[in-house]
Amino acid sequence: MLRVAEPLVSLLTDFGLADPSVAACKGVILSISPGARLVDVSHSIARHSVAHGAAVLWAALPYLPVGVHLAVVDPGVGTDRRAVALRTRRGDHLVGPDNGLLLPAAEILGGIEAVHLLENPAYRLAAVSRTFHARDVFAPAAAHLAAGVALPAFGPGIDPASLIALQVAPPEPARGHLDASVAFVDTWGNVQLLAGQADLESAIGPVSSGDGLRVEAADGSALEGRRRIELRWRLAYGEAEPGEPLLCLDSYGRLALAANLASAAEKYGLRADRRLRITRS
Amino acid sequence: MLRVAEPLVSLLTDFGLADPSVAACKGVILSISPGARLVDVSHSIARHSVAHGAAVLWAALPYLPVGVHLAVVDPGVGTDRRAVALRTRRGDHLVGPDNGLLLPAAEILGGIEAVHLLENPAYRLAAVSRTFHARDVFAPAAAHLAAGVALPAFGPGIDPASLIALQVAPPEPARGHLDASVAFVDTWGNVQLLAGQADLESAIGPVSSGDGLRVEAADGSALEGRRRIELRWRLAYGEAEPGEPLLCLDSYGRLALAANLASAAEKYGLRADRRLRITRS
Amino acid sequence: MLRVAEPLVSLLTDFGLADPSVAACKGVILSISPGARLVDVSHSIARHSVAHGAAVLWAALPYLPVGVHLAVVDPGVGTDRRAVALRTRRGDHLVGPDNGLLLPAAEILGGIEAVHLLENPAYRLAAVSRTFHARDVFAPAAAHLAAGVALPAFGPGIDPASLIALQVAPPEPARGHLDASVAFVDTWGNVQLLAGQADLESAIGPVSSGDGLRVEAADGSALEGRRRIELRWRLAYGEAEPGEPLLCLDSYGRLALAANLASAAEKYGLRADRRLRITRS
Repeated sequence: MLRVAEPLVSLLTDFGLADPSVAACKGVILSISPGARLVDVSHSIARHSVAHGAAVLWAALPYLPVGVHLAVVDPGVGTDRRAVALRTRRGDHLVGPDNGLLLPAAEILGGIEAVHLLENPAYRLAAVSRTFHARDVFAPAAAHLAAGVALPAFGPGIDPASLIALQVAPPEPARGHLDASVAFVDTWGNVQLLAGQADLESAIGPVSSGDGLRVEAADGSALEGRRRIELRWRLAYGEAEPGEPLLCLDSYGRLALAANLASAAEKYGLRADRRLRITRS
Repeated sequence: MLRVAEPLVSLLTDFGLADPSVAACKGVILSISPGARLVDVSHSIARHSVAHGAAVLWAALPYLPVGVHLAVVDPGVGTDRRAVALRTRRGDHLVGPDNGLLLPAAEILGGIEAVHLLENPAYRLAAVSRTFHARDVFAPAAAHLAAGVALPAFGPGIDPASLIALQVAPPEPARGHLDASVAFVDTWGNVQLLAGQADLESAIGPVSSGDGLRVEAADGSALEGRRRIELRWRLAYGEAEPGEPLLCLDSYGRLALAANLASAAEKYGLRADRRLRITRS
Repeated sequence: MLRVAEPLVSLLTDFGLADPSVAACKGVILSISPGARLVDVSHSIARHSVAHGAAVLWAALPYLPVGVHLAVVDPGVGTDRRAVALRTRRGDHLVGPDNGLLLPAAEILGGIEAVHLLENPAYRLAAVSRTFHARDVFAPAAAHLAAGVALPAFGPGIDPASLIALQVAPPEPARGHLDASVAFVDTWGNVQLLAGQADLESAIGPVSSGDGLRVEAADGSALEGRRRIELRWRLAYGEAEPGEPLLCLDSYGRLALAANLASAAEKYGLRADRRLRITRS
């Protein structure tokens, strides 16, 4: 059994797989770092949704080996938004635009040890387009990091505190209710919230299986024609009847609004960024 | 030209590629077995359709090198369904839930030599969630198998005859008609049936190109408004006129209901699990 | 850091990822050339659209390392269309049907140095089906090329000039207008035309940012109810107001009809093969 220690480069984008974009990025990486082991995190991030990309990256990266992680959801490409690479305390390098996309993942990987701008033309393609920095700036940087180039070679170090924060509302526990935003919807229509059990319990006290809960839109609007969803706290999807809605901890340790063997996202019209309010019923 | 003998790990799931699930599984595998060569079979199996997953696995695995094949379509996750790994006579390891998913592929790879339960906590993630055994149980097992851990180390051996059978109706040839279920629909809308030419000929006698056939729903219901489809036995799609329906042997050696340069699945509303009856017209 | 020089094999098809087709091709390749490094260009080419596949291949391959590139969009499978492999002056091998699919990519990789037919049964699967030459003929050829078999071993050499041309209308600059076909639509709905800035300027003279232009269907038909689109020449998407249409050079150096932060393809009903006429407004 041969064990090779090839550098891992993961990729997350909102490019889809129908056009040449992802292949061009992979080609650039393999041209610079032929031994790189490429792993797709996802290329199906909702177009231009930095919050969606950040949530998926946060969920996936803790399970990936230490490596170089390229993430590009970049509505500001071609403007003066900064291009950065950062090193986490776990030892990963994250490469992408300075728009908040990388921050939740960096935090869960131990926090940021150093950040540098991607300014050195030696580590970009010879011609940098106005519209495709993933290929021309970020992929070359990821590949050179994978090939062993040190972070300071890419450009000046900057203060991690100067990085643009992710524009996403944090969980807000209050007396009797928790407001939380949708992080992402998984393949089965389970709706992950950007909040944990501690957030919920600091708002409404300890929960146990079978407790009745109520979920509404935080802004009072309807959820596919409903004013509220009445459901129960469960330890697993299978504790509910088929089709019955529930709130539980998902496999990433966050609150999830689900429906057993059905799609809660479809049933209640939920998608990334929607903000919900949870109370006891 | 360097030839490396990295262990191959293939993956089939119903997870899609839009959420972090597949990436988390791949990350777990590469963390345990950094040299593993990952190949996606498909992540677009119809949600919770064990029969669909089993049919695609059956079709693909004979063309893959001997390796470890992880397959997870697992509506019973979190219940007491068993988690297993088995060795085929060809030398592959198949890893997944004990719900029938693995059986047709195991059979076409020579049959089952041994089956063991995945119970040894040393080969699971430290924390096993209630809802994501692909990441916490099956991916670690596949990775440890790829890294050379022997099958008996995972848990007690069980009788292959005790494995849960796939809940799918077999082909039923009778005097004058063959009943057969849809295995899967391919990208072009060709409808593969779970039956071969021998099944058909044992029901209606030898067929040759141009023979007139009739296809109906086995339960007498309509097919997109039609009571029956009149078509011909063909040796290739191109023998029919554009849009004309036909029955032929597909490239996996099974009967396929197709339409030349068109989607038979769309035209007749066919999908996995639908049961059809074929007679001479 | 270990650098391995594994042979690269890229794949482009119109097979999608929901059935076993792509996995079967990859399995065949890895069975023959276990060290091959597989890179997906795209499997989402519009079904049977040779022009679409050719345009995506043309865009992606210049960014990939020298390697073996397998491309199969093959409406003529099972007829007498020829199966070929060719070597480009850059040193790549391109493998696929002789229907024009490979030609634009071969040209941008330096042109064709040699073409051979894939006729030697030693480099096909033992049984060749009527309907799946990607698995039975093209994938084995790509794998044997990756494993070092020389091009002449596959079959007789043929004159590159005898290859079937791609059936796609070239850009036609005339006095005052340019006619050009849609090459592909990218993930964001930007519409790449099969024409460059020189084609446009030879028709309407030098353009600079802000120049007013008019786009119509070359055949006079409507574009989602509109007779014409009035827009401006821009250097980047961001120079236009949100939703405003524009014409610019895309990141592959071709003309692109786009709309800032919106989908021009959706707005104007554009897809591969549509032919447009551009004039000054």
